[in-house]
Amino acid sequence: MTEKNEAKPGVNRRTLLGNTAAAGVIGAAAGGAVVSGLGGQALVPSADAQTRQPSRPAQQSYEVKPGELDEYYAFFSSGQSGEVRIYGMPSMRELIRVPVFNRDSATGWGQTNESLRVLTEGLTPETKSYLSSIGRTTFDAGDLHHPHLSFTDGTYDGRYLFANDKLNTRVCRIRLDVMRCDKILELPNQHTVHGLRVQKFPRTGYVFCNGEDGVPLPNDGRDLDKPETYRSIFSAVDGDTMQVAWQIIVDGNLDNVDADYQGKYAFSTCYNSEGGVTLAETMANEQDWVVVFNIGRIEEAVRRGEFREMGGVKVLDGRKGSALTRYIPIPNSPHGINTAPDGINVVVNGKLSPTATVLDVRRFDDLFDDKIQPRDTVVAEPELGLGPLHTAFDGSGNAFTTLFIDSQIVKWNINAARRAFAGEQVDPIIQKIDVHYQPGHNHTSMGQTKEADGRWLISLNKFSKDRFLNVGPLKPENDQLIDISGDRMILVHDGPSYAEPHDATIVHRSKINPIHRWNRDDAFFGEAVRQAQADGVDLMGDSKVVRDGDKVRVYMTSSAPAFGLNDFRVRQGDEVTVFVTNIDEVEDLTHGFAIVNYGISMEVAPQATASVTFKAERAGVYWYYCTWFCHAMHMEMKGRMLVEARSA
Amino acid sequence: MTEKNEAKPGVNRRTLLGNTAAAGVIGAAAGGAVVSGLGGQALVPSADAQTRQPSRPAQQSYEVKPGELDEYYAFFSSGQSGEVRIYGMPSMRELIRVPVFNRDSATGWGQTNESLRVLTEGLTPETKSYLSSIGRTTFDAGDLHHPHLSFTDGTYDGRYLFANDKLNTRVCRIRLDVMRCDKILELPNQHTVHGLRVQKFPRTGYVFCNGEDGVPLPNDGRDLDKPETYRSIFSAVDGDTMQVAWQIIVDGNLDNVDADYQGKYAFSTCYNSEGGVTLAETMANEQDWVVVFNIGRIEEAVRRGEFREMGGVKVLDGRKGSALTRYIPIPNSPHGINTAPDGINVVVNGKLSPTATVLDVRRFDDLFDDKIQPRDTVVAEPELGLGPLHTAFDGSGNAFTTLFIDSQIVKWNINAARRAFAGEQVDPIIQKIDVHYQPGHNHTSMGQTKEADGRWLISLNKFSKDRFLNVGPLKPENDQLIDISGDRMILVHDGPSYAEPHDATIVHRSKINPIHRWNRDDAFFGEAVRQAQADGVDLMGDSKVVRDGDKVRVYMTSSAPAFGLNDFRVRQGDEVTVFVTNIDEVEDLTHGFAIVNYGISMEVAPQATASVTFKAERAGVYWYYCTWFCHAMHMEMKGRMLVEARSA
Repeated sequence: MTEKNEAKPGVNRRTLLGNTAAAGVIGAAAGGAVVSGLGGQALVPSADAQTRQPSRPAQQSYEVKPGELDEYYAFFSSGQSGEVRIYGMPSMRELIRVPVFNRDSATGWGQTNESLRVLTEGLTPETKSYLSSIGRTTFDAGDLHHPHLSFTDGTYDGRYLFANDKLNTRVCRIRLDVMRCDKILELPNQHTVHGLRVQKFPRTGYVFCNGEDGVPLPNDGRDLDKPETYRSIFSAVDGDTMQVAWQIIVDGNLDNVDADYQGKYAFSTCYNSEGGVTLAETMANEQDWVVVFNIGRIEEAVRRGEFREMGGVKVLDGRKGSALTRYIPIPNSPHGINTAPDGINVVVNGKLSPTATVLDVRRFDDLFDDKIQPRDTVVAEPELGLGPLHTAFDGSGNAFTTLFIDSQIVKWNINAARRAFAGEQVDPIIQKIDVHYQPGHNHTSMGQTKEADGRWLISLNKFSKDRFLNVGPLKPENDQLIDISGDRMILVHDGPSYAEPHDATIVHRSKINPIHRWNRDDAFFGEAVRQAQADGVDLMGDSKVVRDGDKVRVYMTSSAPAFGLNDFRVRQGDEVTVFVTNIDEVEDLTHGFAIVNYGISMEVAPQATASVTFKAERAGVYWYYCTWFCHAMHMEMKGRMLVEARSA
Repeated sequence: MTEKNEAKPGVNRRTLLGNTAAAGVIGAAAGGAVVSGLGGQALVPSADAQTRQPSRPAQQSYEVKPGELDEYYAFFSSGQSGEVRIYGMPSMRELIRVPVFNRDSATGWGQTNESLRVLTEGLTPETKSYLSSIGRTTFDAGDLHHPHLSFTDGTYDGRYLFANDKLNTRVCRIRLDVMRCDKILELPNQHTVHGLRVQKFPRTGYVFCNGEDGVPLPNDGRDLDKPETYRSIFSAVDGDTMQVAWQIIVDGNLDNVDADYQGKYAFSTCYNSEGGVTLAETMANEQDWVVVFNIGRIEEAVRRGEFREMGGVKVLDGRKGSALTRYIPIPNSPHGINTAPDGINVVVNGKLSPTATVLDVRRFDDLFDDKIQPRDTVVAEPELGLGPLHTAFDGSGNAFTTLFIDSQIVKWNINAARRAFAGEQVDPIIQKIDVHYQPGHNHTSMGQTKEADGRWLISLNKFSKDRFLNVGPLKPENDQLIDISGDRMILVHDGPSYAEPHDATIVHRSKINPIHRWNRDDAFFGEAVRQAQADGVDLMGDSKVVRDGDKVRVYMTSSAPAFGLNDFRVRQGDEVTVFVTNIDEVEDLTHGFAIVNYGISMEVAPQATASVTFKAERAGVYWYYCTWFCHAMHMEMKGRMLVEARSA
């Protein structure tokens, strides 16, 4: 571990990145850019920052020995991979992938009828029509950035995980009892969804979704060349029904979002206050905004009917001057926004400014009542280093901010920063350590709840360069694990990660209680159960073929090492639906069902039913087989689909 | 680590699983089945087994500290996930995924023109026609079982990795310089490809591909109900050209395959000598086979024209009685087959028999010359435990065999087993340890080459059950790391793994030398370069739009943090191809290109060109953006696709 760039008393960097420096950043590639031209200002080191914690030098072990369990679940997004990954922490081992916006060969996600229902039912009519025009029913790709769990009373309640798709403007919900995505909703009107967070109090409640890009409303080919008419939209989704509760038009491009612990406000960073459409235009201003949304006022406006109906949802106007929002000027293209576990301080990360701006949520009431000015909500603005992107918390008053350009994490004290902002000569910075390289999000254990426990920090780094064995032009990212249980941060582990370590949520295992076997009355495969009942089939016992014109429904059980049918017969051109019900009760005894040379493959976990529909367009003998190793005779678990030739 | 089931002198299990016991196995789920009814036979413990190695008690560390590099690459297959995964060892960290038979949202594999070329050009005309009939050009799923690297003179030469697709009867090749799949070949006539290994000497050369299931030839709807006419096929693919060199019809169902170190023979385990089509039928015989292929005789037969041309390839007849093959009886439904680094001993794993059968390759010449009987090639048949599936080697004369039903790995000495088979009272078994649970393949560092180094063993276990935090009904598998550098195996790490830890190859890092940036003359994107030349476009400098009727080719560079075009304009219904060339030279500075609400997403590594073709069927403003974090202004790296409405 290197700490060569630790903050030293008297040489703390104090200069905002103005336009000139920012222009320098534009020209510098991320791979090791050094921005020069910084001034300096002497500061008395903060005795407070050195002594505010009891001395805790001990290093925790991140090793989880064979047979032991991790203490935390970490839910990772995967960025452009489109899935969610569940890790164990502190071992940093990937436990399972949850397919969401991607296609998954192993489970048949994107191929089974159960997954296609989830992938298609929440799309807008316009998108369904578009997909139909290109011969498709679904998208096969996504860009899943921000995974956040449902809250009750300020901490995780173990019900759901929500996440966004930046690529196709969707929001997903994952059920934490089965770790499977059960709802995907496309947000109408909005163009991309970037930041996503949830209501923390009294419960989730709302899922807040930042629209990033502005487009014409509606976006049907009009006003292509009038960027001044482009609009960005903020959406609140009801997490229980997975329907849009309301949308609100804003100025600028929304970036990240968070909510308070009182249930009154959501707030989004917002860049491109210029309303530009080119890089130079979006960089022009020294300050952009945090947009604060007054949830009570918005709900009241909805009740009063002060909305337009667009794309089937209620759309309000929250542009500058609206009573529903406030725009707080923040330097400069701010990126991450993070509410501290104290329920008071909100840290806004300056990105192109070396500062973090701390807002006090207790001042928002006065702001909306016009008793104070927007900048009066600012209670600290410490200068942390170059490229501050996101901040995490330890629950003891300290903050940990990623510095993208410096490739560091800086530990600083919030109260010390407030005192410095009030004029005291204190240095809030406690320590900086190098990370490898270019960190984006970072996270602490339980740090996004009121139960932040100050044990572990992860830094999700965008570049790994030389940190791992070379695997060719496309390198892994690097998720680094940092022990923050003592006074000083200690880097303990490098974790390579496939595209990309975008964001994560670290949850104590006591909050999560998945089941081991599916319940037979689960709605996830309810349509298959209803179809079987209509056909007079007992899915847990019967294996039979039902012909219905040129539609054939093939029902079979799977129980290691045999399917309920040794073979079944169809005619070339039939539309065939195969329903497989795993009647094994043994935990972890998953089966699979695949048909050779038909490309059909799906997973059936214990006590589940899975189904897939296809056209039997190839005549001949096609063996089906179990893909999930289930038994010493697993390889012999197979049967034959006999497809009679059309001419026969 | 538990070793409660270690072999004890005098209580070594000695009874073959006969039909009765095997039937018991059928009824028992893999999840903890205990098969009873075993007999016992007293044996004098082998002093040799206790003393043949110098005492080496020291435990190696598997920890790779931050900034250090792993010593080995491990190339993992992913089974039904359809991809290849590259791990670092001994840290057991996944470094990168290589998409192959699956779709990958991050890289655009299955969507870019470059990947579609790889995915489609090697398909048979019949499969292209079938896919076209269902409105597709590719399969989206695969079942990738066996990853094996190219050899020169008995060890890895760092050129290629080959692997099979059991789902759609394909073979892939991955270039190890760029870690990208460059060829996929569908095997005609054959129905599934299961086992895959490569020629070790003088070089690869041949890639041997086991056809598992029997089907009618041709499989076009005839003979659906005549299983006696079904045929299985063994293929030899030329690894340099990725064309089928020859195929050979066999009896039974081929399972796994290996080759010798002399370049003369390949040999496959073969179950279902009964030619059955149901589980009971395939289980009837006490013995099945190893089929030995005489490469010289086959090549000579090809030269003499002793083949049928079927599906465009040369097909020979190697059924029982052929001069090209020999069928060695082996108990009972044997599964894995593994050539020891000594170049002499071939271990065949009994699966439904508790034995491993050792063949001496030096006897195969006499076998083909009919000087000896098939069973005369057997030089040992030690009884190891229940469900032996695969064997790995340490290069010091010891073998490590997975026992699926016992959930153990047994370490035994090959020469001691040969002496016991010859009548000496020696016990070849050295140690057994529990693994968790139900191991399939296992592997040692460099253990599949003549350079086996006896450092590390991994056990790829099919069930994890309670070994990790519960993630719902679908559990991870468990890849366990075992230190074999001392006298005794020591379990040091549990590694959770997404479906499935099917097989792996562990390669010393000195053998692998990938490049960091693409070469501009790489054939992988050669078509894009040729198209640009035809359009008079310099991909490394020009960003421009070329209209060609209703086809539009959009060329743009990407250089952090900007694309070469701020916007481009097309008409609704145009067929648009976007070519993005990453002109950044910085190592690890990958860009992405995605179009919001169009589902388009692809990766462009440094100095590469990637392209994607789509119909612009949605009118309006659609922002494109960079998906691979590249710069402090990464979020601002975007532009607009302006789609004029068709009616306009």
